[in-house]
Amino acid sequence: MTRKKIAVLGSTGSIGVNTLKVASSFPALFEVTALSAGSNIELLNEQIKKFKPKIVCVKDETGAYKLKQALKGSSSPLVYSGVTGLIKLIRETGAELIVVAVVGGAGLVPVLESIKCGKNIALANKESLVSAGSYIMKEAAKKKVEIIPIDSEHSAIFQCLKGEKNEKIRRIILTASGGPFRDYSRQELEKVKLEDALDHPTWDMGDKVTIDSATLMNKGFEVLEAHHLFGIPVNRIDVVIHPQSVVHSLVEFVDGSVLAQLGVTDMRIPIQYALAYPERFNNNFPRLNLTNMKALTFSKPDTGKFECLAYAYAAAKAGGTMPAVLSAASETAVDAFLAKEIGFTQIAKIIKKVMTKHKVIINPKLKEILSAETQARSAAEKEIENGKY
Amino acid sequence: MTRKKIAVLGSTGSIGVNTLKVASSFPALFEVTALSAGSNIELLNEQIKKFKPKIVCVKDETGAYKLKQALKGSSSPLVYSGVTGLIKLIRETGAELIVVAVVGGAGLVPVLESIKCGKNIALANKESLVSAGSYIMKEAAKKKVEIIPIDSEHSAIFQCLKGEKNEKIRRIILTASGGPFRDYSRQELEKVKLEDALDHPTWDMGDKVTIDSATLMNKGFEVLEAHHLFGIPVNRIDVVIHPQSVVHSLVEFVDGSVLAQLGVTDMRIPIQYALAYPERFNNNFPRLNLTNMKALTFSKPDTGKFECLAYAYAAAKAGGTMPAVLSAASETAVDAFLAKEIGFTQIAKIIKKVMTKHKVIINPKLKEILSAETQARSAAEKEIENGKY
Repeated sequence: MTRKKIAVLGSTGSIGVNTLKVASSFPALFEVTALSAGSNIELLNEQIKKFKPKIVCVKDETGAYKLKQALKGSSSPLVYSGVTGLIKLIRETGAELIVVAVVGGAGLVPVLESIKCGKNIALANKESLVSAGSYIMKEAAKKKVEIIPIDSEHSAIFQCLKGEKNEKIRRIILTASGGPFRDYSRQELEKVKLEDALDHPTWDMGDKVTIDSATLMNKGFEVLEAHHLFGIPVNRIDVVIHPQSVVHSLVEFVDGSVLAQLGVTDMRIPIQYALAYPERFNNNFPRLNLTNMKALTFSKPDTGKFECLAYAYAAAKAGGTMPAVLSAASETAVDAFLAKEIGFTQIAKIIKKVMTKHKVIINPKLKEILSAETQARSAAEKEIENGKY
Repeated sequence: MTRKKIAVLGSTGSIGVNTLKVASSFPALFEVTALSAGSNIELLNEQIKKFKPKIVCVKDETGAYKLKQALKGSSSPLVYSGVTGLIKLIRETGAELIVVAVVGGAGLVPVLESIKCGKNIALANKESLVSAGSYIMKEAAKKKVEIIPIDSEHSAIFQCLKGEKNEKIRRIILTASGGPFRDYSRQELEKVKLEDALDHPTWDMGDKVTIDSATLMNKGFEVLEAHHLFGIPVNRIDVVIHPQSVVHSLVEFVDGSVLAQLGVTDMRIPIQYALAYPERFNNNFPRLNLTNMKALTFSKPDTGKFECLAYAYAAAKAGGTMPAVLSAASETAVDAFLAKEIGFTQIAKIIKKVMTKHKVIINPKLKEILSAETQARSAAEKEIENGKY
């Protein structure tokens, strides 16, 4: 058996790091042929030493220069930078599977390029599907590219659907931990500080995803992702709050039977599943112990308190360019919150404002999606600058 | 699409009645070509009028005579009786799928005959697999006969394994409601009356299965069934007490991922699954509402208190003819309890006594299995007559 060649884009982020952990647990099964990162040159350098990829890419030329300085070995990989570098990396890497673990809107280009090159994708990036899901799925189908979700929720659904037909789905039920503030009152939410929001109870994730989880926007994105990945209208995708995060999501079929995927909260399990798919490999990760855990509870999310989730459904309903606007406005607003420029509840307000002003283009071309995103970012920035929040 | 022809053996029992309910919900999909029953001639007569099968079979000639009297129509079905009648029914029915919903040891002959005739089986009978599982599975494989379980637990596992490979199973986890006495003390168990035991909280089942559920012997049988159906050693089959009966069973794969099937406690769902397999058909059965139910809990079964479960594992470990002895002794003891000849906790004592005295034959022939069953029944009857219980 030859090793499966994988490229890991966003290798220094939370998912990237865990992907490399999984890959290094199975040296006989996986070969890492390419890595890309943003500005964490130090960690990337360590990863290069360990995995010896043939090509790497960093965010910009400054990073590329620093990295080359740090490497200065004869067996160094090719070092590219920027979006064009990332495109070259995808074209030139011999990888069969591209792990897109880039966070935010930056995930769209590598997803589209991977599809263009006919390479299967293990997808952790949410925003690409949220903004351009229809386009991505159409192109992927044309090129017979498989998109295997890494997100624990979508991995759960993907696993429940193995051997089943999508047209037999009656309902998809996405579980949500509810975030650290699920029991907060409206007043308490107003007072949430950055430090509180970054202290997420269950999963180990990056900052942006952690904030998106606290606002439930992350779950809203997941509704849109599931819509595109599984071809189900959003009115048949429900969100339930499940604070124990044991059941990772569920599928109800037309005959009333419900399948669910469960597990410990360890991202390595869905990552390994995506890397190994359609196989399953034995591992020594911690195991779920049903008789040694808290009772499992499920409740309805309060979209009055967590408006972002409602806005995601509204964006899905509006369709066209609106989900891209949702995603871009959200990213800008979260960046501002992370920079302590706005408060926690202002995130939703900014998104709402930007969405309200947007004029939807139905069946948008890719450039119209990208342009809607750019406009939404500017509009969100203007809202933040106006400082009425 | 031509209708799928089905024969329902044990049509007047709980599973049989529900099978016919499902069949009548889909008149365009299923045609009932044969029915068999024990001595409930009245109900069988009604079923014949409704489903117009071509052949029916009853337990004995007296029943056949009564039925013919009741029918006396020109369009009446052929009426057979006894074991030979049942065999003829299976041979002559044009059914593609034989639903074996006969209770107890009487299920073995129709299972073996269906396999001989190359007909797929929807299996609700437990005892056949418990006693002669190795033989049945070997013969079914030879004849390429599919055995689709109807039991909610095994249907759950069967569904979780669709699209998966059995060798990737790390563990099967069977859930058990725990029966009506799960929280009883040893002393309280001693005082259990027949009426208490027949008042099962969740599923609508026949009397024998209800008592087996109360002693957890039913779960012990299910461990043995799962062992044969899915080819997994019993030390990798766990039982957990799950009083809410929402999760019907789970499969843990080698990669740590766990799949589960959930649903409302309605036998029509697994029955419909077995009839429709490999398809799923839309229905209007009650739907699982996650946000409107009690918290889900899981705990270890107390095999000190519910010894029958321990004896089932012991029988599996001993192998050979021992599971047949377990099944036959258990059936005799439960009959005695249903006839108020012995008390509730005597059931386990009798089974233990009979098992202790049995000399295991490893790799038994079918006739050795049947002979072990006969001996176990006599031994159990003798124990009951001795009346030391």
